[in-house]
Amino acid sequence: VTPVGPLRHAVPMETELKPITSPGTRFVELCEEHAADFATRADEHDRESSFPLENVKAMQESGVAAACVPEQFGGLGLDSIHDLTTGVNRLGRGDGSTAIAINMHLTATWVVARAWRELVAKGDHERAAPLEFLLSGVGGGALVVCVLGTEAGAYAGYPLAELTPVEGGYRLHGRKAFGTLSPAANLMLVACRLRQDEHDNAVFAAVDPNADGVVLRDNWDALGMRASGSQDVVLEGVFVPEGTTLTGGTWGALTPTAITNILAGTSGLTGAFLGIAEEAHRLGIELVTTRKKAPSERGVASRPSIQHAIAESEIDLATSRGVIAHSAGLADDYYATHTNVDAGVEDLHGLFAQIQAAKTHVNAAAIRIVDRALTVSGGAGYMTANPLSRLYRDVRAGPFMQQYSPNEVYEYIGKVALRLDPTLDL
Amino acid sequence: VTPVGPLRHAVPMETELKPITSPGTRFVELCEEHAADFATRADEHDRESSFPLENVKAMQESGVAAACVPEQFGGLGLDSIHDLTTGVNRLGRGDGSTAIAINMHLTATWVVARAWRELVAKGDHERAAPLEFLLSGVGGGALVVCVLGTEAGAYAGYPLAELTPVEGGYRLHGRKAFGTLSPAANLMLVACRLRQDEHDNAVFAAVDPNADGVVLRDNWDALGMRASGSQDVVLEGVFVPEGTTLTGGTWGALTPTAITNILAGTSGLTGAFLGIAEEAHRLGIELVTTRKKAPSERGVASRPSIQHAIAESEIDLATSRGVIAHSAGLADDYYATHTNVDAGVEDLHGLFAQIQAAKTHVNAAAIRIVDRALTVSGGAGYMTANPLSRLYRDVRAGPFMQQYSPNEVYEYIGKVALRLDPTLDL
Amino acid sequence: VTPVGPLRHAVPMETELKPITSPGTRFVELCEEHAADFATRADEHDRESSFPLENVKAMQESGVAAACVPEQFGGLGLDSIHDLTTGVNRLGRGDGSTAIAINMHLTATWVVARAWRELVAKGDHERAAPLEFLLSGVGGGALVVCVLGTEAGAYAGYPLAELTPVEGGYRLHGRKAFGTLSPAANLMLVACRLRQDEHDNAVFAAVDPNADGVVLRDNWDALGMRASGSQDVVLEGVFVPEGTTLTGGTWGALTPTAITNILAGTSGLTGAFLGIAEEAHRLGIELVTTRKKAPSERGVASRPSIQHAIAESEIDLATSRGVIAHSAGLADDYYATHTNVDAGVEDLHGLFAQIQAAKTHVNAAAIRIVDRALTVSGGAGYMTANPLSRLYRDVRAGPFMQQYSPNEVYEYIGKVALRLDPTLDL
Amino acid sequence: VTPVGPLRHAVPMETELKPITSPGTRFVELCEEHAADFATRADEHDRESSFPLENVKAMQESGVAAACVPEQFGGLGLDSIHDLTTGVNRLGRGDGSTAIAINMHLTATWVVARAWRELVAKGDHERAAPLEFLLSGVGGGALVVCVLGTEAGAYAGYPLAELTPVEGGYRLHGRKAFGTLSPAANLMLVACRLRQDEHDNAVFAAVDPNADGVVLRDNWDALGMRASGSQDVVLEGVFVPEGTTLTGGTWGALTPTAITNILAGTSGLTGAFLGIAEEAHRLGIELVTTRKKAPSERGVASRPSIQHAIAESEIDLATSRGVIAHSAGLADDYYATHTNVDAGVEDLHGLFAQIQAAKTHVNAAAIRIVDRALTVSGGAGYMTANPLSRLYRDVRAGPFMQQYSPNEVYEYIGKVALRLDPTLDL
Repeated sequence: VTPVGPLRHAVPMETELKPITSPGTRFVELCEEHAADFATRADEHDRESSFPLENVKAMQESGVAAACVPEQFGGLGLDSIHDLTTGVNRLGRGDGSTAIAINMHLTATWVVARAWRELVAKGDHERAAPLEFLLSGVGGGALVVCVLGTEAGAYAGYPLAELTPVEGGYRLHGRKAFGTLSPAANLMLVACRLRQDEHDNAVFAAVDPNADGVVLRDNWDALGMRASGSQDVVLEGVFVPEGTTLTGGTWGALTPTAITNILAGTSGLTGAFLGIAEEAHRLGIELVTTRKKAPSERGVASRPSIQHAIAESEIDLATSRGVIAHSAGLADDYYATHTNVDAGVEDLHGLFAQIQAAKTHVNAAAIRIVDRALTVSGGAGYMTANPLSRLYRDVRAGPFMQQYSPNEVYEYIGKVALRLDPTLDL
Repeated sequence: VTPVGPLRHAVPMETELKPITSPGTRFVELCEEHAADFATRADEHDRESSFPLENVKAMQESGVAAACVPEQFGGLGLDSIHDLTTGVNRLGRGDGSTAIAINMHLTATWVVARAWRELVAKGDHERAAPLEFLLSGVGGGALVVCVLGTEAGAYAGYPLAELTPVEGGYRLHGRKAFGTLSPAANLMLVACRLRQDEHDNAVFAAVDPNADGVVLRDNWDALGMRASGSQDVVLEGVFVPEGTTLTGGTWGALTPTAITNILAGTSGLTGAFLGIAEEAHRLGIELVTTRKKAPSERGVASRPSIQHAIAESEIDLATSRGVIAHSAGLADDYYATHTNVDAGVEDLHGLFAQIQAAKTHVNAAAIRIVDRALTVSGGAGYMTANPLSRLYRDVRAGPFMQQYSPNEVYEYIGKVALRLDPTLDL
Repeated sequence: VTPVGPLRHAVPMETELKPITSPGTRFVELCEEHAADFATRADEHDRESSFPLENVKAMQESGVAAACVPEQFGGLGLDSIHDLTTGVNRLGRGDGSTAIAINMHLTATWVVARAWRELVAKGDHERAAPLEFLLSGVGGGALVVCVLGTEAGAYAGYPLAELTPVEGGYRLHGRKAFGTLSPAANLMLVACRLRQDEHDNAVFAAVDPNADGVVLRDNWDALGMRASGSQDVVLEGVFVPEGTTLTGGTWGALTPTAITNILAGTSGLTGAFLGIAEEAHRLGIELVTTRKKAPSERGVASRPSIQHAIAESEIDLATSRGVIAHSAGLADDYYATHTNVDAGVEDLHGLFAQIQAAKTHVNAAAIRIVDRALTVSGGAGYMTANPLSRLYRDVRAGPFMQQYSPNEVYEYIGKVALRLDPTLDL
Repeated sequence: VTPVGPLRHAVPMETELKPITSPGTRFVELCEEHAADFATRADEHDRESSFPLENVKAMQESGVAAACVPEQFGGLGLDSIHDLTTGVNRLGRGDGSTAIAINMHLTATWVVARAWRELVAKGDHERAAPLEFLLSGVGGGALVVCVLGTEAGAYAGYPLAELTPVEGGYRLHGRKAFGTLSPAANLMLVACRLRQDEHDNAVFAAVDPNADGVVLRDNWDALGMRASGSQDVVLEGVFVPEGTTLTGGTWGALTPTAITNILAGTSGLTGAFLGIAEEAHRLGIELVTTRKKAPSERGVASRPSIQHAIAESEIDLATSRGVIAHSAGLADDYYATHTNVDAGVEDLHGLFAQIQAAKTHVNAAAIRIVDRALTVSGGAGYMTANPLSRLYRDVRAGPFMQQYSPNEVYEYIGKVALRLDPTLDL
C-alpha cells in the first residue's frame, strides 16, 4: 500500500459556494476582505453587545452596501440571489451579527431594484421615481435601510402596527421587535397594516429614525447575535407623508409580492448561518490538528472519533452548500424569466418552499456543525475566550429568524407539497 | 385573508434534477420513457427475484446503454457525471434494480471513454485500440459490461481474486459477490490482484461469461434489489489472454486512476436511490391526498402530522438533489479541466470525499423518505401488494454499496478533511 | 497500563428486563424456553406467511397462554404489566410474529381478569359471571382470544363495525383489518359501535369464528410479521346474543375504561419490538466478532466504526429498557392502588402518555438497532437466508401498531403534557 | 365524542424520578427546598460568574452536604446511587452550577463512606481511620471536598500532576483545570501519578487549598455553568505528608477501584442535566400556555407544531428518567451484593457502560429539550433576561464532563459490548 501523503491544501475552501455572475464575483471578493477585518472585532462587540457602526461604514465605502443597486445609480448591479447569498456567506464567517444586519439592507435594495426594473420596463416612470430615489440614495452611499417586520404579539405577515389616515398622509402606531441593523439605519421600512373596506393592505412605511415619535429602545441584550443591534423600535404616532409607503400586498396573505419581498432575504440568511458553521468547523479542525495529549501524545486528529465527527460536519456542509446552490439557482432561474410575478402564485409557493427547505436544513445543520466543533475541542471551546463559545450562541438565532421558524415551516412546506392552500392556520 | 387556492401542478417535479448538457437532455428523456415501462414489471421481477433481461435489451435498442460512448462509435456522447446521475435517477423511479444494474455498465463505459479520449489526445493509439474495441462494441449494441469488484472476505480495493502468469496470459482464480447485472453481461471486468516485485497491481481482467472456469452461481436471493441479478461469480482458473486487462492502479491504493474508476459509478448510485425515494414520496402523497377516514371523513392530508412528515421528506429531497447537483457539478468541472488525472491526488480525494458525502447523505435521506411514506400510508404500504413495501426493501441496499459503506466512509471523509493520509485502517 | 482482558460473559443479558413478581418470574422463564423453540421455525413461517399454530398450542400447554388468569381458574396469576411486557420481550427474541399475536390474547385476559377482580370486590357476581366463564376457558386451555379493532376506513377508537339490535341480541356488520392471531382464535372480541340516543357506545362483541357470517379472508401477505396471521375478517350480519358483549366505554372517547383496555397491550408490544432489536443486535455482534477480512485479517470488531455503531445500539437498548421499566412500573403502581379506574381520567391520560412515549421511543430505537446490525454485517444481513433480513421487515411493523402510530402520538402526548383536552382532532 | 376536559395537575411531576430509600426520601425533600431557593439567585451568579458560597453553606446547614456520610458521623446515611442522582436532579432544576459542584463533594464522600464500610467489615481499622476522619469532618459540617481530576494536556485517567517522594511525604507538581467547587472547598483531592517500578500508581492527594504552593487561578469564565467555580488550580511543589493520600488504582487503568471512584459521580451528573432540561421544559410549557398571538389570538399551545415539539421533549424526558432509574438501579443492586469490588472487573465494566449510556443519552436529550423550549418560545427565550438563555448555555456543559465525553464514550461502550479490552486507544 502506497500512502498518498497528506493533502496539501484546504479542502473545504475548494468546495465552498462560488459566485456565478460577474457582479457576484466582485461582491464576494469584497465580502471576503470585509470578513477578515470584521473577525478581528467580533468578540469585542459580542462582549459589549455593541453595534459595529464601523463595519457598516466600511461596506458603504467599499461598495458592498450598494451591491444590489443598478450600476447607473452607483451600485454593483448584483441581481443573482445565489451570489447575494454567497457574499453574505463570506460575511457570516467573519461576524454573524454584521452578516444578518447587512443582509436586511442588501435584500431590501434587491427587492426595490427588481421592482424598479419592472416598472421601467412597463414605462411606469411615476411609480418608479420614489424607488429610483431610494436606489440613488443607497448607490451614493447616503442611505442604510432596515426593515422592521417582527412583533411580539403577532405571527409573521400579520403586523399590528397600523397606519391611520390623516391629512397629507398617515399616523403610524406600533411596537416592533428584533429591529436588526436599526442603530445604523437612516431609513426604516416598517411593515404595517392599512385597513380597507374589502381587505386590509400590508404596507411598508418609510420612516426616518429621527422623526418625532420614533423611539429606539436600545435594549438589545440577547444570548447571541449581540452585535446585530436588534433592538425594539416603538412608533408613537409617527407621521408618514403620502407617497412614502410601498405596497406589501394584502395583510396576512402570502401574495406573490409578499413572497418576492422576503425570498431573497431568507436565502441570504442561509448564507450567513452557513458562514458561522464554516468558521466553527475551521476552528475545530485547527484545534484537533494542533493539539496532542497524554498518554500517547499523538495528535488529537488521529483519533477515529474525531475523524467521525469531522466527517459528519463535512456531510452537513456539503448538503448545506448543495441545497443553497440548488434553491437559490431555482430562484435566479425563475426571476430571470418572470417579469410579472403576480402570474404565478403556485410557482412562487413552490419556489419559496424550496428556499424554506434550504433555510430549515441549513439552520439545523449549522447548529450541529458548531456543536461538533465544541465537542472535538474537548472543553477548550466552552471558554468565553474561545470564539467557538460565541459561534454556539450566534448560530442558535437561525431558526428564530422569520419567515419561517420551525414552529411554522413544516406546515408551510407540507401544504405546498400536498397542494393544499398554504395559508398557515395561525 | 385571501386564500391563494390549491396549487395546480406538481411541485416536486419542477425541482427535480435537470440535465445541463445536450447529450444529457436526450439521455434523461429516454430514461424517463424507460422508467415508465420498467415500473410496470418491477413488482413481478421483485417477487420472482428474476432479472429483467428485456429492460437491458430495451436500453440497448434505445441508445441508453450506449449513452457514454462517443458519437463516432454510435453513442450519445454523454460525458457529464451530473447528467449521467440525473438519467439513472429517472430509471430509479421506475425500477431500482435495473437502475443500479445499468449504472455499472454506463459508468464502466464512461471510464473507458474518458481513458480513450486521453490516450487519443496523447497520440497513444496502441493503448487506445482495445478501448476503442470495447466502445465500438457497446456503441453497436453488442456488448453489455458488468464489473465484479466485491468479495466476501476483503474490503473494497483489496481484491483477493488473483491473476497468475501463464503462457500467453494469466489464469484467474477468485470468488466475486454482488455481481450486479451479470445475468445480462457478455463482458465482465473482474477486479483482481497481480503480484509484482515492488507492489502489487490492481487489474481489471476482461472475462467472457461463457469462458471455461466461469461459474455464475444464480444464487441471488436478497431482501431487496431482487431484480438486479447480483449473483456470486466464481472464477476457477479462467484463462485471461495478454492484452485483455486494464490497469486499475496499485492494489489496495486509492490512486487517481482508482478514484476515477469508481467516482462516476458512485455518483450514479446516488441518483438511483434518490429515484426510489422520489417514487415512494409520490406514492405517499397520492395515498394521503385520496384517502378519507372516519370519524371526520376529512382527507388524511389535512392532518398536521401528515403535513409535517411530508415536509420533512421535502427537505430531505431538496438537500439530496442539492448535494448531488453540487458534487456532480464539481466532478464535471474537475474532469473538464484535467486531462492528466494523476497530477492531482489531493484534489481527487477532495472531490471524491464530496461524492462520498453525497452518497452517504442521499442513502440515509432516501431511507428516511421511504420510511415516512410508509408512516403516512397508515399500514397500507406494509402490504406486499403495495409497491412501498418493495421500495422499503430496495432502498436499504444503498448504504451497503461500495465504495464506501457507513463502516468506512466517515474515516475516509474525516481523514481527507483533516489532511491526513486517507488510506483506511483496514 | 494493565489491560483488563476480554470480558468473560455476555453484557447485554445482564442488563435485560427482569421480572419483579413471582408469577412474572415463572412466566418469563417459560417464555424464554418457548423463544428458543420458536426461533427454529421463525424463518420458515416467514417465508411461507404461515401461522404457527403449534406455537400457540405449546403456549397453551405450558401455561403461558393462561398467564394472566387468576390461579383459581388455572392460570399463573400474573398481574404486573412490567412482567407481562418482560415475558413478551423474550418471545419477541424468538419470533416477533408469535410475540405480537399472543400479546393480544394475554392482554385481553389481563383486562378481563382485572375487571373480574373489581366486580368480585364490589360483590357484583352477576356481571362477574361471564368474565369468570372466559377466564375459566382460558385457564383450562380451551380458549384463545383475539381482538379485532382496526378498520381501514376509520381511526382507532372509532370502529364502524356496528351492532344492530334484533330479537335476543344483535346483528353485527363490519370489516376488520389486521386480525392478528385470528387463525388460532376460537373467540374473537370485535370492537364495534352501538348507537344510542345520547352518545354511541363502544362495545366488544364476543364472536365465534365459526359462526354464520364470519369470513376469515386468509389474505395476510405483508412485508413483515408474516407469521402473525393478521388477516382481514368480515362480519356479515353475525348474530350476537344478548349477554355476550363487553363494554368498551363511549364510542370515540378515550375513557378510563378504554385506556385500561389498551394500555397493557401497548406496553406488551414494546416488549416484543425490544426483543426483535435485541436479537438483531446479538446477531450483529456475533457477525463482527467472528469475521476477519483482508488485507489485515483483523477481526471486524476491532474497527472503530463498528464499535461506534455497536455503542449507539447499546445506548438505544439501555434507553428502551429504561423507559419500558419506568413506564410499566408506573402502570403497576397505579393499578395496584386504584380499584375504581373511572375516578382518575387525568391520571390515566398522564400514565397512558408515558406508555405511548415508551412505545414511540422503543419502536424507533428498535428500527435503528436492526438497521445498525445490518450495517455492521457488511451485506451479509441483506441476504434472505440471514435472519437479519426478516428482522428488518418485522421491526418496521411497530410504528403502525395502534394506539398510536406516529401520525397520532405526538398530538396525544403533546396535548396531555399541555393539559389540553387530549381528544385527537381526527 | 365527550371531551375529557383539561388535566387538573402537573403531569411531568408525577413521572419524575422518585427516591426509593428512606435516607433518599429525606435527601430529595431537602434538595427540593434548596432548589427553590437557589433558583432565585441563579441568573445573578451566572451574569457575574460568581460562586454561590451561600448555597454551599445552606447545604452544610441542612444536612444535604453530609448526605452520604453514615449516620454515626452525623450524615443522612444515603447509600443509594439512584437516590443520590434523584436529589442532584432536583438541585439541577434550581441551579445547574450548584448541582454539579455539590455533586463532586457528595459523590466523593459516597466513595469514602463505601471504602470505610468495607474496611471496617474487614476489621482493617488502621486504614479506616483517615477515612473516618474525613467522614467526621463532612458529617460535622467542617469539610467541603472537591476533586481535581482534569488536565488540559491529558486524557481522563492519565493525570500528569505528579507526586515526588521527599522526606515525610511528597511534593506535588501539576496544573488542574475545571476545578469545580474549588472556591468553597477546604479539602481538595488531587488526582496524580506516583511513579513505581512496575507500573505507576494513580493516587488522590488530599491538599489544603491554603497550603503553600497552591494557586487558585480565579479564572473561570465560560459559556455556561458560570457559577460552578471551575477555575484552574496550579500545584507548585505542594507538600503532601505521608498518610494523606488515597489510592486510585493503577495510573491509566480503569481498575475496579477507579470505576467505583467515578461511577456515582457520573450518575449524579445525569441527574443534574436532567434537572436543567426539566426546568427548561417547564418554562417552555409555561410560555406556550400563557401566550396568544394575532391574528387568531388563540393560545400558542393550540398549534399542532407546538404540541409536536412538546411531545418530543416528553419522550426525551421519559427515556432520560427511565435510563437513569434503570442504570442507577443496576448500580445499587451491584454494590449491595458486592463487598470486594476487585473481584468483578468485567461486571464493573458492564455496569459502568450502562451508566455511560445513561450519561450519553441524558446529555444529548437534555440539549434537545432545552433547544425545543427555545423553539416554542418563539424568540422570547433568546433574550438574556429569560432563564432559558442561561439553561441553553449550562446544558451544553454535559457532554464535556469527564468520564467520558462523546469523543471517548462510543469506543468504551462498544468495546465493552464486544467483549474487547475496554482500554481506550488514547
